Amino acid sequence: MIVRQQQWSIQVLAVVSDTISKQFVKFCSNITKESVVDIKGKVARTPSKIGSCSQKDVELYIEELWVVSQSADQLPLLLEDAYRPVNGDDKDADIRANLDTKLDNRAIDLRTPANQAIFRLEAVVCKFFREILTAKGFVEIFPPRIKNAVTGNGTNVFKISYFKGSAYLAQCPTFHNIIAIAGDFERVFTIGPVFRPEDSNSHRHLTEFTNLNLEMTFKHHYHEVVDVIASLFTSIFKGLREKPTAGTLTWTIQIENIHQLDSYQSEIKTICEQYSVEPFKFLDPPLKLEFPMAVNMLRENGVEMGDEDDLSIPNEKLLGRLVKAKYDTDFYILDKFPLAIRSFETMPDPDSKVGSNSYDMFMRGEEVLTGGQRIHDYHYLMKRAKHCQVDIEKFAYYLDAFRYGCPPLAGGGIGLERVVMLYLGLDNIRIASMFPRDSKRLTP
Amino acid sequence: MIVRQQQWSIQVLAVVSDTISKQFVKFCSNITKESVVDIKGKVARTPSKIGSCSQKDVELYIEELWVVSQSADQLPLLLEDAYRPVNGDDKDADIRANLDTKLDNRAIDLRTPANQAIFRLEAVVCKFFREILTAKGFVEIFPPRIKNAVTGNGTNVFKISYFKGSAYLAQCPTFHNIIAIAGDFERVFTIGPVFRPEDSNSHRHLTEFTNLNLEMTFKHHYHEVVDVIASLFTSIFKGLREKPTAGTLTWTIQIENIHQLDSYQSEIKTICEQYSVEPFKFLDPPLKLEFPMAVNMLRENGVEMGDEDDLSIPNEKLLGRLVKAKYDTDFYILDKFPLAIRSFETMPDPDSKVGSNSYDMFMRGEEVLTGGQRIHDYHYLMKRAKHCQVDIEKFAYYLDAFRYGCPPLAGGGIGLERVVMLYLGLDNIRIASMFPRDSKRLTP
Repeated sequence: MIVRQQQWSIQVLAVVSDTISKQFVKFCSNITKESVVDIKGKVARTPSKIGSCSQKDVELYIEELWVVSQSADQLPLLLEDAYRPVNGDDKDADIRANLDTKLDNRAIDLRTPANQAIFRLEAVVCKFFREILTAKGFVEIFPPRIKNAVTGNGTNVFKISYFKGSAYLAQCPTFHNIIAIAGDFERVFTIGPVFRPEDSNSHRHLTEFTNLNLEMTFKHHYHEVVDVIASLFTSIFKGLREKPTAGTLTWTIQIENIHQLDSYQSEIKTICEQYSVEPFKFLDPPLKLEFPMAVNMLRENGVEMGDEDDLSIPNEKLLGRLVKAKYDTDFYILDKFPLAIRSFETMPDPDSKVGSNSYDMFMRGEEVLTGGQRIHDYHYLMKRAKHCQVDIEKFAYYLDAFRYGCPPLAGGGIGLERVVMLYLGLDNIRIASMFPRDSKRLTP
Repeated sequence: MIVRQQQWSIQVLAVVSDTISKQFVKFCSNITKESVVDIKGKVARTPSKIGSCSQKDVELYIEELWVVSQSADQLPLLLEDAYRPVNGDDKDADIRANLDTKLDNRAIDLRTPANQAIFRLEAVVCKFFREILTAKGFVEIFPPRIKNAVTGNGTNVFKISYFKGSAYLAQCPTFHNIIAIAGDFERVFTIGPVFRPEDSNSHRHLTEFTNLNLEMTFKHHYHEVVDVIASLFTSIFKGLREKPTAGTLTWTIQIENIHQLDSYQSEIKTICEQYSVEPFKFLDPPLKLEFPMAVNMLRENGVEMGDEDDLSIPNEKLLGRLVKAKYDTDFYILDKFPLAIRSFETMPDPDSKVGSNSYDMFMRGEEVLTGGQRIHDYHYLMKRAKHCQVDIEKFAYYLDAFRYGCPPLAGGGIGLERVVMLYLGLDNIRIASMFPRDSKRLTP
């Protein structure tokens, strides 16, 4: 049995003779904080609840105590500081550990109840994603993260030395998912890291994050795909309200019958003790707006923007607040983005001069998914690629996939850490990334 | 409904008047191979089996036929050549497509029945890995693939330009999994790409492959972990004999009641039509040998090697044949590797001067997993790191994780594509990687 002080506390009693007991107490008092100990003893019900322990109904009568791993005398981060409520009293501000200190000492910081809950929930979100899509006939594939070429001007990509030449790290796996669809897989998804040299101190950008990407054929209209993705999100949100299945539960029962979870909601409650959070609201089916409607809503609130301008981050957030006020939802879909601001493979909207069959999805006013219908006609794709000044030779591997038959298709990519951050209402994506990477952080 | 010729063939009949029928036949005969068509019609049982179609019991009375995506006239790869049995008649050797042609035209090549089966099975192996470990209380985590430092001499790693400095691509995620264990996660796994600049034309090395990595605490002996991994493998092997669950089945029922799978074994049978394969044999529980025993077996068969030498690839294969002959198993565990050939964090064997608490696991005589007990005592780890001339400063992020308490732990990393290749008995790992990467291949 591994016992740490903060992870879950239990009243520990040495039931031996007085003399040995004093020696024992002295021995125990010399065990440094955060040491790992093995304890052999008897668990018993307490006559009355113990206020100072997380296990209030039981106490442990120790027979043996072994120090398995002795922690250093001085901790660079105290767990009580790492776990101090972020929105708590201002008097705590000085002793509350800052994010960099916590990340620098992640092996300690991960032991806080909130971090245990955050990363176990992140695994659950990913599990839901996979199980829901697998049940809908999607096949998981493992596309490469090393590429010969990337779109854009080359400043938005990490370059690798690759033997005598060079290569690039994938910003997303979409093109390979699409080739798998051209290769008759019909519905595929992939989960894995993507890489973007974001050089900002933004609360929501990392240089590496986990991308959940899906692609599928459709029969009549790309909204068939939008509906699949929409129901994926609502199923995940609803799943987080349900009781965990046995498989997911097992991790909580290190000592059976003592520390059991009733629901993911109790994890969320634990997180709320450190980060005060508004519950996440959503509609089922989700709200779907079209881009021109969003532009109108923003203009009515004093924003000046053109019909083909992208949403700036402040406008994205403002739109989220306007949508929340009007529709009472933290999740919505924005369809029909202007073609001019989407990549060359995006299918234009046949009913509009400036629109496209593409969409973003938002949580608490921040983008969590980008997707769209992809052009599946080779000749039209070539025309769009040339129009967008794509290097035809470097992207031959992609373009050629459409020469020999490809069904209509659409898809999208989701940022896992962003979904977790925004579902929980955390204010920094680094809190939802176990070992975050940004322009200044390469460790731990 | 999407119909391709080779994916599954069905007898198609136009039931219209004679004149229109002739026009229709002419129209159909002009549809190029591999085009995607939408067909509206009635499915009917046939009076007798149709030999030339994969759907032998039904035929389709066409009412409408639309060409959704017209393939180019000339195919760079014919599906019948891509799917020609590799171990078939020598007379086929000239027309059988070679692997590079197939990989260059992967969007076509993926349409073969064997490739459809291989990559759907790969997804299933990964699904089993996750579900089995989740049921055992493991938490999935998403460690970074960008690192500040790597072990070794720097020639075995890909270097990235990282803003004004540089960084490296992960060869494995083990160190971060270990930090998660130090951070109280007890049992973690991760699935994702790893990167190794293998510059050989080897049949079993890729520069990027999918790594299934797990790490866990144990109570008394690292063999608790070996047993968990061993039962993971046998559970996967046994799972492949079972009927798929409904969720896994859905992908096969594009037209319900026509094309349903009874078991993963029918996928394997499809693969065997192209690649003739010996069924995979295993013992339950698996065979566990110690390294010195393996050295003796090899020496008895004329191999000259020292007690602390690593297994060369030919010796690894020879050992696999010897084990198969003696124990009739294609899967076994080799425990107690010499300390001298393992990395610095490996726990030495307390009962031997040269051994260590580390292990590899083998399928058909080739390594599919490397793992071991990790040193969890900070001071001893520092001693070993210095002995192995590790750059202490660069690895501070790892070493420091052991200063503040860490339970005993062990784990290992599995190559997904290699497991699929060897379970199926394929002769090249590129066949089990949808978009393989090697020193010469960066596309598609």
